[in-house]
Amino acid sequence: MSSDPTFAPGCPLPAAGYALTVMAHGGGGRLMQQLLDRLIRPALDNPWLAQRHDAAVIECGGVRLAFTTDAYVVKPLFFPGGDIGKLAACGTLNDLAVAGARPLFLSAALVIEEGFPLADLKTVLTSLNAAARAAGTAVVTGDTKVVERGKGDGLYIATSGIGVIDHPQRIGPRAIRADDAVLVSGDLGRHGVAVLAAREGLGFETTVQSDCADLSALVMDLIAAGHELHCLRDLTRGGLAAALVELARDAGVDIEVDDAAIPVAPGVRAASGILGLDPLHLANEGRMVLFVPPAQADATLARLRGHPLGREAARIGVVRGGRGGVRSRSAYGTFRVIDLPSGEQLPRIC
Amino acid sequence: MSSDPTFAPGCPLPAAGYALTVMAHGGGGRLMQQLLDRLIRPALDNPWLAQRHDAAVIECGGVRLAFTTDAYVVKPLFFPGGDIGKLAACGTLNDLAVAGARPLFLSAALVIEEGFPLADLKTVLTSLNAAARAAGTAVVTGDTKVVERGKGDGLYIATSGIGVIDHPQRIGPRAIRADDAVLVSGDLGRHGVAVLAAREGLGFETTVQSDCADLSALVMDLIAAGHELHCLRDLTRGGLAAALVELARDAGVDIEVDDAAIPVAPGVRAASGILGLDPLHLANEGRMVLFVPPAQADATLARLRGHPLGREAARIGVVRGGRGGVRSRSAYGTFRVIDLPSGEQLPRIC
Repeated sequence: MSSDPTFAPGCPLPAAGYALTVMAHGGGGRLMQQLLDRLIRPALDNPWLAQRHDAAVIECGGVRLAFTTDAYVVKPLFFPGGDIGKLAACGTLNDLAVAGARPLFLSAALVIEEGFPLADLKTVLTSLNAAARAAGTAVVTGDTKVVERGKGDGLYIATSGIGVIDHPQRIGPRAIRADDAVLVSGDLGRHGVAVLAAREGLGFETTVQSDCADLSALVMDLIAAGHELHCLRDLTRGGLAAALVELARDAGVDIEVDDAAIPVAPGVRAASGILGLDPLHLANEGRMVLFVPPAQADATLARLRGHPLGREAARIGVVRGGRGGVRSRSAYGTFRVIDLPSGEQLPRIC
Repeated sequence: MSSDPTFAPGCPLPAAGYALTVMAHGGGGRLMQQLLDRLIRPALDNPWLAQRHDAAVIECGGVRLAFTTDAYVVKPLFFPGGDIGKLAACGTLNDLAVAGARPLFLSAALVIEEGFPLADLKTVLTSLNAAARAAGTAVVTGDTKVVERGKGDGLYIATSGIGVIDHPQRIGPRAIRADDAVLVSGDLGRHGVAVLAAREGLGFETTVQSDCADLSALVMDLIAAGHELHCLRDLTRGGLAAALVELARDAGVDIEVDDAAIPVAPGVRAASGILGLDPLHLANEGRMVLFVPPAQADATLARLRGHPLGREAARIGVVRGGRGGVRSRSAYGTFRVIDLPSGEQLPRIC
């Protein structure tokens, strides 16, 4: 079933011209969007995938549930501020949180490479369990597979999650409205810089720790306090830029952000400057963007800042009626278009 | 965090003496049981994992759901009778089915190796979708990651599933009773032989096709017809032998099977004989063992045989009060103890 990469009749991604998978197909950028839009979603076509949300919202016996899954292939497995176990819990918990769901249950499927130290497996599972328990959930079902040396990279984990939506809000891209305020829950780019620093061979050191954290308590706090949330999205691969570009397209609106308002920690800004990276594109694992009604934006911002995970929250922009574009305004009042890179700044960030 | 394999103070698997993962830790045999019992379950300790069932049974807002996950690393990706996509749907559907759950929703997380043909990805996802749809479900959420060449093996898929248990039966190891009849839903070992034949380098050919199939319609048919089902278990890695050994231990009973009653297709028997494999240990992906009250066993057997997936069903044994052992009776009336091998006959069978 193999294909010739140089000539591909019937190539499943004709416009992009790829017959073989390239790293950028997993990078959160334009090539990944093309893979999803032209191959994966059509092959699995159904109305839930068409929701284009991080979690599917499903009805079971009159109960509204959120269901999500993610594979974690972060490299290295241990990085400042976390490890693949903590990431595998928090990433899935965050996908439930941004659907407005209270997390209930997690699953974990392990693909372990022959030769992987069992002590490391124990450390990672202990992290996974601690993060699951801290969110009031547990890993209730799982699976373990072992592949030969050279057919994996230590450990991959796929976690799925089920949460319950026990409030009437319908949070998602379709609820975004013109004039909505755009907030972020904290400063950006910590996870990207921390993983970059931890990766072998890059010869780069920093004290920046990953922001890896479970946002569900923060979202539940906002909902319990009566805040109206139009749309939430956690910022992972591709960073704030990728999230905004996808949401603008899916909601059919323009989004305008103010460069100076976007919070970036000094260590992240320094590392970005040295390495030529844009904090807007750097990955996060404990940050989200929020779209809220303008009249309520200051109250929501204050509520976020009162929570340990939202201390650096900021109001960064506004939704305009439009055709699905994102632009940022510089300190000089000029605008630049924010678009997806073809791949990502750094592969295997999560 | 690495360990010295030759000397392992604080080794997480002290009795087994392993500091590093070996292939047999994923093989469905004794080493995998030790990994689960001594490292994975203790690290994730919770009452749902203690159910020791293929799916966790969870309560959500008064609804009884089953939740399960599996990683699929079968090699090769395409084999007679199926591919990794069909397997990834059917394996997860079967874990729901043996919990007595009607399948509702699936998820899929893909770990794709750089260089994997996108045409193959399309073929596999089409198979996955077809099997999901045939069961009345859909893949409602997913994730895509790409890893570098040499860090994967084409494609790994982790699928999770949610099903609803909308009948009062509590099917599981704890419901097994002395005198229960032991049935199998079909002939054994087809998947193991088909994958063996398809694997490069073994220089072995057969016309045997994998039994890869979704058993949920068969289970739903039995339940709808009023059959009392004490325990069901689909027969995958480790085959019938591994399932019986685990269930005997978990239920605290002895299980006795009759060698001559165990259905094995001629092609599977021939291949097993040539290769020195025991059909009891060969993998299946569309077969289950059933524990039912003795008075109802013939009726259940007849019902199974009336279903396309149960035509070769057979009554193969009986449960005895005891201490958790499995034995099989030969045609000469002698007994042999059935135990787990340390690993499996063939790695990466599913």
